[in-house]
Amino acid sequence: MKKLIFIAAALLTMHISQAQQALWGGANIISPEIKNDNTVTFRFVAPNAKEVKISGEWMPAENWQPGSTLMTKGDSGVWTYTTAALTSDLYSYYFIVDGLKCSDPNNVYQIRDVATVANVFIVGNGKGDLYKVNKVPHGSVTRRWYDSPSLGLTRRITIYTPPGYETSKQSYPVLYLLHGMGGDEEAWIALGRASQILDNLIAQGKAKPMIVVMPNGNVVQEAAPGESSLGMYKPNFFLPNSMDGKFETSFKDIIKFVESSYRVKAEKGSRAICGLSMGGFHSLHVSRTYPNTFDYVGLFSAAVNPLAKEPIPFYSDIDVTLKKQKENGCKLYWIGMGKTDFLYKDMVDYRAKLDAIGLKYTYVETEGGHVWTNWRVYLSEFVPLLFK
Amino acid sequence: MKKLIFIAAALLTMHISQAQQALWGGANIISPEIKNDNTVTFRFVAPNAKEVKISGEWMPAENWQPGSTLMTKGDSGVWTYTTAALTSDLYSYYFIVDGLKCSDPNNVYQIRDVATVANVFIVGNGKGDLYKVNKVPHGSVTRRWYDSPSLGLTRRITIYTPPGYETSKQSYPVLYLLHGMGGDEEAWIALGRASQILDNLIAQGKAKPMIVVMPNGNVVQEAAPGESSLGMYKPNFFLPNSMDGKFETSFKDIIKFVESSYRVKAEKGSRAICGLSMGGFHSLHVSRTYPNTFDYVGLFSAAVNPLAKEPIPFYSDIDVTLKKQKENGCKLYWIGMGKTDFLYKDMVDYRAKLDAIGLKYTYVETEGGHVWTNWRVYLSEFVPLLFK
Repeated sequence: MKKLIFIAAALLTMHISQAQQALWGGANIISPEIKNDNTVTFRFVAPNAKEVKISGEWMPAENWQPGSTLMTKGDSGVWTYTTAALTSDLYSYYFIVDGLKCSDPNNVYQIRDVATVANVFIVGNGKGDLYKVNKVPHGSVTRRWYDSPSLGLTRRITIYTPPGYETSKQSYPVLYLLHGMGGDEEAWIALGRASQILDNLIAQGKAKPMIVVMPNGNVVQEAAPGESSLGMYKPNFFLPNSMDGKFETSFKDIIKFVESSYRVKAEKGSRAICGLSMGGFHSLHVSRTYPNTFDYVGLFSAAVNPLAKEPIPFYSDIDVTLKKQKENGCKLYWIGMGKTDFLYKDMVDYRAKLDAIGLKYTYVETEGGHVWTNWRVYLSEFVPLLFK
Repeated sequence: MKKLIFIAAALLTMHISQAQQALWGGANIISPEIKNDNTVTFRFVAPNAKEVKISGEWMPAENWQPGSTLMTKGDSGVWTYTTAALTSDLYSYYFIVDGLKCSDPNNVYQIRDVATVANVFIVGNGKGDLYKVNKVPHGSVTRRWYDSPSLGLTRRITIYTPPGYETSKQSYPVLYLLHGMGGDEEAWIALGRASQILDNLIAQGKAKPMIVVMPNGNVVQEAAPGESSLGMYKPNFFLPNSMDGKFETSFKDIIKFVESSYRVKAEKGSRAICGLSMGGFHSLHVSRTYPNTFDYVGLFSAAVNPLAKEPIPFYSDIDVTLKKQKENGCKLYWIGMGKTDFLYKDMVDYRAKLDAIGLKYTYVETEGGHVWTNWRVYLSEFVPLLFK
């Protein structure tokens, strides 16, 4: 009987393998293969294709799309491409087979970015090591729901608690970490590698153990696409009411939820808020709306002004609240911006305003533009500065 | 300035849209489109393709692979296919474009099953409604790590706590929910829709609020592929030591962790264990190894015997412990099996053994075989019977 099952299971595996072999080019294909010298080889089985290209995030982008390059056809219809040594980072990529986008069937690791899903891989030996799961103590990541009376919604939120939180009796500081346009409460965990960055920085003694709160910044959404009663629909980049003051004025619901649900230090010196793009915009405006609440503010490639064509009073006259924020004191006002970011000039103007008001800030300018590779770096640099 | 940003953002979106339009056939394509009559239309843009097929889980399978059918080429190179009315369920599918497997670029919802990633959708108006996120109170889902001294590992585990757990003072019963071969601590959440099934059954008053514990049954793994320090590697179907008694004898570490970390009723009448395939095998052998621990046992398409060629003492002589389990009492011993399952005959033999011992069981025989569609149904039927 045992033998029979063994045979049945072996047959099962064989059949699956054969079927996969026919469709996807065999179980022996490794792609991507990341080598010690940080070169990466991709392999794709397409015996009948006339042309196979690869497009990856490490390639120079044009019109917000990374370029692409031809792969080389080899034996048995396996197309290959090997990169030069890549800078340590997390990269997404896809294949273009006779003009058609294809994911890599030999790589099960994919991340959604708004309405697109792409394969990813991590190159180590540098900052990418912070994005890896390493042999260090791990925090917990919880998806749960909280009430937002201001919005009249029950909403999904992602919470990282640091290693040891559950068994400790101590109280922790809190970082509120906000996503950009098209993102949601999954963005920082998935593309941002927030839990890995926190685990690693805490293990290295570079960051204080902290709770990280990742809410959904789209006030019309209860939850990320696929996670609410709207079902599995095509995600949108633009959502209404995301930059009209509703998120900022409803933020008190999030703070109240966190401070009544977790062992936190409910004090200004133990609260930080940061975000990317629209999340930087939200961080800017939330922190001045509650001007004595956060001692740490981080604007990552932040928008300063809303998208609306008509002026919105909530955003038009910000000097009064900014001045209050300055008078109340703020231990760290951190701004990260890429040199080629389309929001660069706005941040120049905003820094002039901060200078005029006398609100001291730390300004970090990096290469590149409005991309996740910068936002992961900004988070990795911001977090060690908190709660000192 | 606001205008400038608005224009920049509009340009950004336009460029992304254009690039996507070129590659993936435009933002206006909806695929899959699920209609009220439970027919589903798929659309795929491939103007230059000679033949596009679709393969989906609703099609009759042969050699463990669902069949495929031709799509029809229409205007602008859009290939379409509409199903007959489908039975309410969650389905996976992919396209085959001139012999090449392609995912649906208009559907961001994908689930990994061992080493394969496929698009999914849910058809409602039936049991599939249990798999949807509905407007009901939601439990929390946490990924965290626990110590397993028996295995010398710190391991990842997924925990569902029911709605209200965090604010309640009451103690809850616990269901241990085990995955099959090739699975891990993500399987029941992803393909099994366990948190949706629990949320919905609890909201309908059909299930008692309970904690659901989803451990990793592969004792050589710390965590699911991509979630441990092994990095992002190609997942394997077979893993060593998964059916040699190590998981069963180390299970006490999981119970200890859960009962010391959560507000649970630490008593036999409030403990259930169930699982699919290898997880059913584990449920069978864990429950007899700790023969006075679980009042509820569920075997879903369970294996009874290990895969090893040589007899393993731990599994060879099970009568003594099974008899103990019978003598100690077990409120529900539930067996679900599909008529065409390759493990069917083994379960006939095992039921004869239970009859001989006098251990009463509930036996549910369904259509179909060794597939997730059955395991979601078995969970949905098993959970309402617990902790009465």
